[in-house]
Amino acid sequence: MDIQSPIPQQCKAGVVSNNGTDYQLTVEDVPVPSPGPDQLLIKMNVTGLCYSDIHYMLEDLPLPRMGDYGVRSPGHEGAGVVVAVGSGVIGWKVGDRAGIAPTWDTCMSCDLCSSDMECHCPHAVPTGLKVPGTYQQYIVSPARYTTLIPNGVDDFSAGPIMCSGSTMFRALRESNLRAGQWVVIMGAGGGVGHMGVQIAKSMGLRVIGVDTGEDKEVLCLELGCEAFVDHLKSTNLSQDVRDIADGKGAHGVLVTASSAAAYRVAPRMLRIGGIVVCVGMPTSGTAFAGDDPMYLILNNLKVVGSLTGSRQDTAGALSLAARGLLKPMYESFGIQELPEAVSRLRQGKVRGRCVVDFKV
Amino acid sequence: MDIQSPIPQQCKAGVVSNNGTDYQLTVEDVPVPSPGPDQLLIKMNVTGLCYSDIHYMLEDLPLPRMGDYGVRSPGHEGAGVVVAVGSGVIGWKVGDRAGIAPTWDTCMSCDLCSSDMECHCPHAVPTGLKVPGTYQQYIVSPARYTTLIPNGVDDFSAGPIMCSGSTMFRALRESNLRAGQWVVIMGAGGGVGHMGVQIAKSMGLRVIGVDTGEDKEVLCLELGCEAFVDHLKSTNLSQDVRDIADGKGAHGVLVTASSAAAYRVAPRMLRIGGIVVCVGMPTSGTAFAGDDPMYLILNNLKVVGSLTGSRQDTAGALSLAARGLLKPMYESFGIQELPEAVSRLRQGKVRGRCVVDFKV
Amino acid sequence: MDIQSPIPQQCKAGVVSNNGTDYQLTVEDVPVPSPGPDQLLIKMNVTGLCYSDIHYMLEDLPLPRMGDYGVRSPGHEGAGVVVAVGSGVIGWKVGDRAGIAPTWDTCMSCDLCSSDMECHCPHAVPTGLKVPGTYQQYIVSPARYTTLIPNGVDDFSAGPIMCSGSTMFRALRESNLRAGQWVVIMGAGGGVGHMGVQIAKSMGLRVIGVDTGEDKEVLCLELGCEAFVDHLKSTNLSQDVRDIADGKGAHGVLVTASSAAAYRVAPRMLRIGGIVVCVGMPTSGTAFAGDDPMYLILNNLKVVGSLTGSRQDTAGALSLAARGLLKPMYESFGIQELPEAVSRLRQGKVRGRCVVDFKV
Amino acid sequence: MDIQSPIPQQCKAGVVSNNGTDYQLTVEDVPVPSPGPDQLLIKMNVTGLCYSDIHYMLEDLPLPRMGDYGVRSPGHEGAGVVVAVGSGVIGWKVGDRAGIAPTWDTCMSCDLCSSDMECHCPHAVPTGLKVPGTYQQYIVSPARYTTLIPNGVDDFSAGPIMCSGSTMFRALRESNLRAGQWVVIMGAGGGVGHMGVQIAKSMGLRVIGVDTGEDKEVLCLELGCEAFVDHLKSTNLSQDVRDIADGKGAHGVLVTASSAAAYRVAPRMLRIGGIVVCVGMPTSGTAFAGDDPMYLILNNLKVVGSLTGSRQDTAGALSLAARGLLKPMYESFGIQELPEAVSRLRQGKVRGRCVVDFKV
Repeated sequence: MDIQSPIPQQCKAGVVSNNGTDYQLTVEDVPVPSPGPDQLLIKMNVTGLCYSDIHYMLEDLPLPRMGDYGVRSPGHEGAGVVVAVGSGVIGWKVGDRAGIAPTWDTCMSCDLCSSDMECHCPHAVPTGLKVPGTYQQYIVSPARYTTLIPNGVDDFSAGPIMCSGSTMFRALRESNLRAGQWVVIMGAGGGVGHMGVQIAKSMGLRVIGVDTGEDKEVLCLELGCEAFVDHLKSTNLSQDVRDIADGKGAHGVLVTASSAAAYRVAPRMLRIGGIVVCVGMPTSGTAFAGDDPMYLILNNLKVVGSLTGSRQDTAGALSLAARGLLKPMYESFGIQELPEAVSRLRQGKVRGRCVVDFKV
Repeated sequence: MDIQSPIPQQCKAGVVSNNGTDYQLTVEDVPVPSPGPDQLLIKMNVTGLCYSDIHYMLEDLPLPRMGDYGVRSPGHEGAGVVVAVGSGVIGWKVGDRAGIAPTWDTCMSCDLCSSDMECHCPHAVPTGLKVPGTYQQYIVSPARYTTLIPNGVDDFSAGPIMCSGSTMFRALRESNLRAGQWVVIMGAGGGVGHMGVQIAKSMGLRVIGVDTGEDKEVLCLELGCEAFVDHLKSTNLSQDVRDIADGKGAHGVLVTASSAAAYRVAPRMLRIGGIVVCVGMPTSGTAFAGDDPMYLILNNLKVVGSLTGSRQDTAGALSLAARGLLKPMYESFGIQELPEAVSRLRQGKVRGRCVVDFKV
Repeated sequence: MDIQSPIPQQCKAGVVSNNGTDYQLTVEDVPVPSPGPDQLLIKMNVTGLCYSDIHYMLEDLPLPRMGDYGVRSPGHEGAGVVVAVGSGVIGWKVGDRAGIAPTWDTCMSCDLCSSDMECHCPHAVPTGLKVPGTYQQYIVSPARYTTLIPNGVDDFSAGPIMCSGSTMFRALRESNLRAGQWVVIMGAGGGVGHMGVQIAKSMGLRVIGVDTGEDKEVLCLELGCEAFVDHLKSTNLSQDVRDIADGKGAHGVLVTASSAAAYRVAPRMLRIGGIVVCVGMPTSGTAFAGDDPMYLILNNLKVVGSLTGSRQDTAGALSLAARGLLKPMYESFGIQELPEAVSRLRQGKVRGRCVVDFKV
Repeated sequence: MDIQSPIPQQCKAGVVSNNGTDYQLTVEDVPVPSPGPDQLLIKMNVTGLCYSDIHYMLEDLPLPRMGDYGVRSPGHEGAGVVVAVGSGVIGWKVGDRAGIAPTWDTCMSCDLCSSDMECHCPHAVPTGLKVPGTYQQYIVSPARYTTLIPNGVDDFSAGPIMCSGSTMFRALRESNLRAGQWVVIMGAGGGVGHMGVQIAKSMGLRVIGVDTGEDKEVLCLELGCEAFVDHLKSTNLSQDVRDIADGKGAHGVLVTASSAAAYRVAPRMLRIGGIVVCVGMPTSGTAFAGDDPMYLILNNLKVVGSLTGSRQDTAGALSLAARGLLKPMYESFGIQELPEAVSRLRQGKVRGRCVVDFKV
């Protein structure tokens, strides 16, 4: 086993207790795990924070529960370096830069895994839910599902790309939109949406940002939106979008917002043959994605749901970052500030993505 | 002008008056029109009846009104023979067999027309709504949008194929399903659905029919369904379908039924990556096609609306009929029985499609 | 008929006589034609010159002959203004800017026309071959197949885009390449290729230019190529390309050059699953597009031939120009210099495309 | 480790020595291997023979050599039963039916593996070339790349489907042809081609068989070809095919033959937009797949090379067999007759595929 010495016995971790509405998150010292066969031990430099982490701790979605798997640290977007290589591993060595994604491993054998849809594999293991996540400084990861971070992408950027960058890369592929077409990103100024704007632009799409507030307008236009519509100022959001998009409507709408209102208006922004891609997850039962059948039929509209990205999507998003075409915005916190950072995220007080630096 | 003599001055037509809830439909003698440049005069042998005709007369959908265009005869699926050829027409001669579709003409110049989506052309002219329809024995039709009926397809079959056969051909293309996959047809025993079963089978799909009643079960199995689920007998319709489809669910569901319940259950019948194709049109505002965003996202589901077929779809469906792979079921009425036939259609008393024979 | 007065009786035209190896091209006064029903009369401001014009005059390709159709002026890429509108025309008025493409009209009714493949319509009429072309200052054009030139694109740019810009737009669509992938353009510095570079870049592709000479290298890099390989300097062209493209090879190669050597090396530049798009036309029988079956099989390679663009492609290319993303390079000549310009084109002495200004 | 007792120490195997032009093949007793972690031990009931086996022994193709890997038994299509299950294996148990394919294992981690293109994985291990093949009665196989043989498919059918059935399933997917279109299978009466006919028919394609001899004609028509052309009797093969296919030509041609002549004529059988799929492997350097660039360009033709099937393709082909839609024809030999069977295959004296029964 190839090992970088010295590996400590203990490391820092954000640890949750009393999961549920009143969960508590503290920073503690936890044991450093050892990599098994075909696994890597990775020292995280950075973990991103994602609202899903909060869902995992709140247990407010119909998902498996961390506690049932003995998992105490959530977190599913992280960047670090390989410090030990398990037996049987090919293609990795100590010192390689490594990224951790929302999916920790899959069966690699089913038709979904061999169709670039491995996130839907029935045996997929979610990081930070069924195995310890990136809130823990040292974690093990199957070599076959670990992402190599390319040169030119720093850890603070790589972290958020591992989850939301990859997710938007996938959503844009699902859209089947092609260069020169109009795409609306609802929630364009948000942590997920602002990466979508950049990825869409790199594909030659013409991007209309929908969000609210002058700050977000400025940000969206800087990132490459051709137009911005403030949904709180607009008196007819769908019409405003249609006017911008040749008077016909957009070719696609990506909903990264998670409000029922966003889902309701999305199809009405489209031209004939257009597509809504659902990304943002409203609380179950509070929103509908779709429309009156007659409206979909008369306009040949499509609606599709898109989950997180596959390894190919993650690699694609990282490649854009390496070429300077994708730069996540983030606020950075030290590891001791992790609980506070999560708290701010929960209150919607974070601009862009939230990343925690294990070195500080 | 190439003319088959003698062309009468008058012909039979189903003529509507007092459009609206209390519309009246009578059989009258009306003038035979003359073809203009680039047009054909076609003598209908058969007109199919479609529930849309009733909507046109009832004026209960948010559509243009016949009366505003001076149109008194609906009907948009018919089969006959060319009896006169207007100036400038190339490729047609008197005696050719000709079919009339729900679309009478389009601009042929826009990007929708050149993308096999001409039914969505903003300049598309609906037959029997903005121009006289196939309830009239002699009608004119633009040569460029008239369908040549191939040998081996009788007029009684060709009529219904011009509308619902073509519609299902299109819907199955929109599904992107491929041979060996499972497709559910909701309303499989109906006038539209039973053609869908046959077309799906000709594509190598494995068809699960959903409908109700023993008659329809027998019919569906005869037409090639591998399984049938009676939605009134089933206590868990989506689960029953999933059990049949490898325990995972179908790859696609085509909703030819127009009930809210059908649309509600459709996505729940699907496996990961599956698609719902919306065909049946519920009264506006009474149904919803789609689902909770989270359900669509977690399962990578798609929902798409599909209108009528294009000329390519119509030709495709007729070609299947010529090869013996598509045989519409119909009840036949004489022209004097047209009002009664429409009345029966409205009451849901017709098995398969309804066709009217102008010769009887 | 909507007419802009005064329309002259005579206009300038490049007129060919003695077609064949020793053809003669002179500038003469010819009668101004009148538009028939559904036609426009267009006053050309600019005609582009294309090597195909020379083929038409030389009669050295297996194509129909101009003389058999009484056509004396070639030319199939031009930009001007509508000066008269024939009867029955909808959507055009005097003063509209109009472009002329290599296809003058098609049947609009066959499955190719309704599949965005109208250039392959068996009834397609080639401009400047079966009807007078853009070397003539005033020509008629079917309204339905005339291109509206958008604001922001000057006539000198619009001319070449009508043929070679549209052709490259199409070729890139045929490639099915997507943003982030590597594409090689062979002949990247040429009149056709340099537009391909810009269009590919607008789609988010990573472009490797192959051509020869320092001028072309500079041009290619300015236009957005990430790398340039001089095929005369390279000792292993395919390996050099593969090295640039992640060491694996490119995802696609567009051959705009017309040498046998270019076609021979193209497949060897590709990674697994890659595609060669054939655009450049070598003299018949002198070159082969393809490879040893085993090489194609072991590497899952594709080879596809792509002709000129459709109306959709032309509109797409013009839209890029209007957005500032596509700027053809050209040398400009006055109408009296037309014969000299053609001569220079024939000798390969023109940089970029060649355009003739009817106003000078 | 789950083991079926008793497992013998020795088993029968076809063993090659003196590889090259004068190779010798004998039946010998060889040691039964043991499954490592994540592996299965499979007792073959049947091995199919494939001409590639002969290439492997002759060493006449530019491929790795068996001897360099210490491999003495070729064979890459076999069917049997799991008799021991290595540590760590999930989802398999002793007694499960198992099939062996031309690919023994791949990395499962690269973008090709996760794109259903794993046969092109740079780390793919070819069965019977780098690891012992199915000429050996007991072999080990990675659980993740072993195929479960479904009920309803006997071992004699499953064997050939594991290689050539799957290959044709893939080739037809690569063709992108859809129901109702015309496909030509060159070599339709051969061991590979006759499965292609059946698979194509199950997809709703209209199949034209090209081969020679009355026996093959009868076979092809029985298997579902709509027409047959004897290439030795035809004086104009491409024209004969075009005449059958609506006078326009076929939509696709699959070349399972491996002659230069077959590859030369294939593109000429196609209509506009058609595709040639290359499957048969002529000796390197003796044939060319493609055509004059101008011919490909003017007709928008495609040429693509297709290797063996993926796990998904194999599962698809086996599923057709389970439904009675794919029945390989074969001649059966006992294990002691293996050398003779190979000899007959080499001489082209076998009708359909050749299978060897380890039990006889």
